[in-house]
Amino acid sequence: MEAKENCKSSAAYPMNSGDGPYSYAKTSTFQKTVIHFTKELVQKEVVEKLDIGFSSTASPPTIFSIADLGCSVGPNTFSAVESIIEAVELKLQSQGLTSKIPEFQVLFNDHASNDFNMLFKSLPSNRRYYAAGVPGSFYGRLFPEASLHFIHSSFALHWLSRVPKAVTDKSSPAWNKGRVYYSNSRDEVIEAYKAQYQKDMEDFLQARAKEVVCGGFMVFIIMGIANGIHPSEAGVNTCFDLIGSCLIDMVNKGIVSEETVDSFNIPIYMTTPHEFETAVKRNGCFSVERMEVLPHEKVNGVANNDHQIITYPMRSALTGLIKQEIGEEIVDELFDLYLKKVEEVYLSSILDSGKSLSFLVVLKRKASH
Amino acid sequence: MEAKENCKSSAAYPMNSGDGPYSYAKTSTFQKTVIHFTKELVQKEVVEKLDIGFSSTASPPTIFSIADLGCSVGPNTFSAVESIIEAVELKLQSQGLTSKIPEFQVLFNDHASNDFNMLFKSLPSNRRYYAAGVPGSFYGRLFPEASLHFIHSSFALHWLSRVPKAVTDKSSPAWNKGRVYYSNSRDEVIEAYKAQYQKDMEDFLQARAKEVVCGGFMVFIIMGIANGIHPSEAGVNTCFDLIGSCLIDMVNKGIVSEETVDSFNIPIYMTTPHEFETAVKRNGCFSVERMEVLPHEKVNGVANNDHQIITYPMRSALTGLIKQEIGEEIVDELFDLYLKKVEEVYLSSILDSGKSLSFLVVLKRKASH
Repeated sequence: MEAKENCKSSAAYPMNSGDGPYSYAKTSTFQKTVIHFTKELVQKEVVEKLDIGFSSTASPPTIFSIADLGCSVGPNTFSAVESIIEAVELKLQSQGLTSKIPEFQVLFNDHASNDFNMLFKSLPSNRRYYAAGVPGSFYGRLFPEASLHFIHSSFALHWLSRVPKAVTDKSSPAWNKGRVYYSNSRDEVIEAYKAQYQKDMEDFLQARAKEVVCGGFMVFIIMGIANGIHPSEAGVNTCFDLIGSCLIDMVNKGIVSEETVDSFNIPIYMTTPHEFETAVKRNGCFSVERMEVLPHEKVNGVANNDHQIITYPMRSALTGLIKQEIGEEIVDELFDLYLKKVEEVYLSSILDSGKSLSFLVVLKRKASH
Repeated sequence: MEAKENCKSSAAYPMNSGDGPYSYAKTSTFQKTVIHFTKELVQKEVVEKLDIGFSSTASPPTIFSIADLGCSVGPNTFSAVESIIEAVELKLQSQGLTSKIPEFQVLFNDHASNDFNMLFKSLPSNRRYYAAGVPGSFYGRLFPEASLHFIHSSFALHWLSRVPKAVTDKSSPAWNKGRVYYSNSRDEVIEAYKAQYQKDMEDFLQARAKEVVCGGFMVFIIMGIANGIHPSEAGVNTCFDLIGSCLIDMVNKGIVSEETVDSFNIPIYMTTPHEFETAVKRNGCFSVERMEVLPHEKVNGVANNDHQIITYPMRSALTGLIKQEIGEEIVDELFDLYLKKVEEVYLSSILDSGKSLSFLVVLKRKASH
C-alpha cells in the first residue's frame, strides 16, 4: 500500500514522443505561438531588470546557466532558450560589455520518462551553449545550490506532482466517483485539487529558491483560468472534463470498467493569476517583476473551426497518462469519441470564453538575509 | 563529398542498448571487474593528492562537478562515480572538514545516439548527486570553461573520432582494401590510424584542459597494448581483426559485397602506455600522477574456456557501428561466424598473451601560467 502511494506520488507522464501526427513535437503549435509572442516581453524584462553582475560580484559570471523545466522533446524549448541568450547578450552589448559575454549552459529538464534521446538528437547544431539533460520532477531539487541564473518553463506548471490522495479514496468525501477531473465535481474534490496545487507550488518554489542565485530570474508561461470564476466555467477545464465523459460512454459500452473511471484522475490543475501570485508571496523568496495575461487573440490566432486543434494537443498531452493508468488499447477509440464530443459542444464556447487564459510571470530571486 | 566527410567525422556508434543478452548493460562485466579493482587505487590517489581547495580558493567548492565520458547506459558508470564521491568525502572527513562536504553534480556524457532514456531510468534512486546527461563527442568541448573538478572515463578512449580518411581513399597508399582494422594491415594503414589517434588525443586533451579547474583530476582506464610490440601481436587487436575475416567469408558467400568490406573500417585504436603518456606531455596542461598497468589475472579473472566472453562484448560494442555502416540484417550471421573463428583460434592466445593490457592513468590539471 505504502509502496503504491510512493509510486503514485512521483507521477510522470511524458508528452507523446517521436514525430507522428499526435506527437508533442507536431501538436505544440499553440505553445510555439505563445513563446514567439512572449519573446519580446521577456527580452524587455531582461534588458531592463536583470542585473547580470548578480549580487555576489560586480562583473558578469563566466558561466551563465539556464534551465528549462518541463522541456519535453523540442522544438519550442530551443527557441525559448535562444531568446533568453539573445537577451542577455543584448544587455551586455548595450552596456559595452561585449567582451564579458559569458559561456552559456542550458539544462533541459523533464521527467526521466521524457524522450531525452529525441531531445538530444534535435538539439540545434549551431547552438551557442553547452547542453545537458536533467531528468526528474521539478517538484523536488534538480540542481545544486545557487547554480542557476535563469529558469524558464512554459506550459508545464499545470501538471500536479500526483493525483490528490483523497480523490481516489472511497471513504473520503472527496472521492471523485464517475469523474476524472475536478472542475465539474463536488466542492470537496475541487478543494483536494487546490490543496495539492498549493502544496506542489510550495515545494516547487522552495526548491527553486535554493537553486537560483540572488538576482536570478524565473520566467513562466502558465495555462490557467480567470480570477474569481468557478473552474467549470473555463473552456480549458471543459477540455479535460470531456475525457471523463468519453470514458463513461466507454463504460456503458463495456469497454472500460466503472472501477477504472472511479480510480483514474487527471493530475492537472488550472490555477488563476491571483492564486499563483499568492503562492509566490507565501514563499517569500521571489519578487514578482511582471505578471501579464496574454492577449487571447494573439495566442489563439488559429482557425476556430478545426476541432482537431483541441483533440490533437489533448491526445499528445494525455496519451502517456492514459497508457500507463488505463491501457494503450483504448487510446484510439477514446480520442475518436473525444473528437465527436468536441464537435457537439459549440467549439467557440471552449476557445473563446475569455475565462481560460495564459499568463506570463517574471520572478526575481531576492537577496537572502 | 564534403558533406559526407563531415558526417563521417562525427562518427557515433552507441553500445547496444536495452537489457537483452548482447546489451552493454549485460556484457560489460569485464569493465565492472576493472572498475571494482581500480576503486582502491583511485581512492588512494584522491586522498593523497587531490587538493580539494583547488587553486583559486582555500576552502572546498560548494559544488563538486564530476563528468563521466563515454558513460554508456550504466550500471558501471554509477559505481565509478559513487566511488569518486566516496573518496572526496573520505578526504574531507579525514581533514575534519565534514561540514564542508560539497554538493555533488555528475554529468554523464556519451554520444547523442547513446540510450540516455535507459541511462536516466537506471539512475540509482538513492544517489547523493545531481545528475545530468551531456550528449556529444568528447573530442570536442562539452562543458563550460573551468567547470569540472573530476573527469572519469573507462574503456571509451579507444574509440577514434572517425575512420582515418586515407584508409577509405582508393588512391591512397593507406587504402585498407579487404580489411576492416589496422593491426594486420600494411604500415601505411597502421600509420594512418596512429595519426588519427594522435590528432584525437590532441583535441581531447585541449578540450579537457579548458574544462577542468586547476588542480582537477582526470582518471582514465584505457584498453591498449604493451609498449614496443607490433599491433598484430596483441590479442585484443586479433579480436577486431577477426571481424574482417568473417566479413570476407560473407563476401565469398555472396552475402556482403567486396566494396562494403573495402569501405568499412572500425574506428578503434589500441594505444600503448608510452604513446598515451607522450600525448599528455605534448599537450602540457596535465601532470601524470599515476600510470599503472592493471594486473591481467585480476581484470581477466573469468572462465577462459567460454568463447562467449569475447563474442558477447564484441557484439555489444560493434552492433551499432555495423548496423549503421553495413546493415542490421547481417549482424546475427556475422557473430555466429565470429564465435566459430574465436573457437578456431586458440582462445588463450587472445586472452593471455600479456600483450593486451588495460592501464589506469591519473592526471592532474596544472595551474595555468
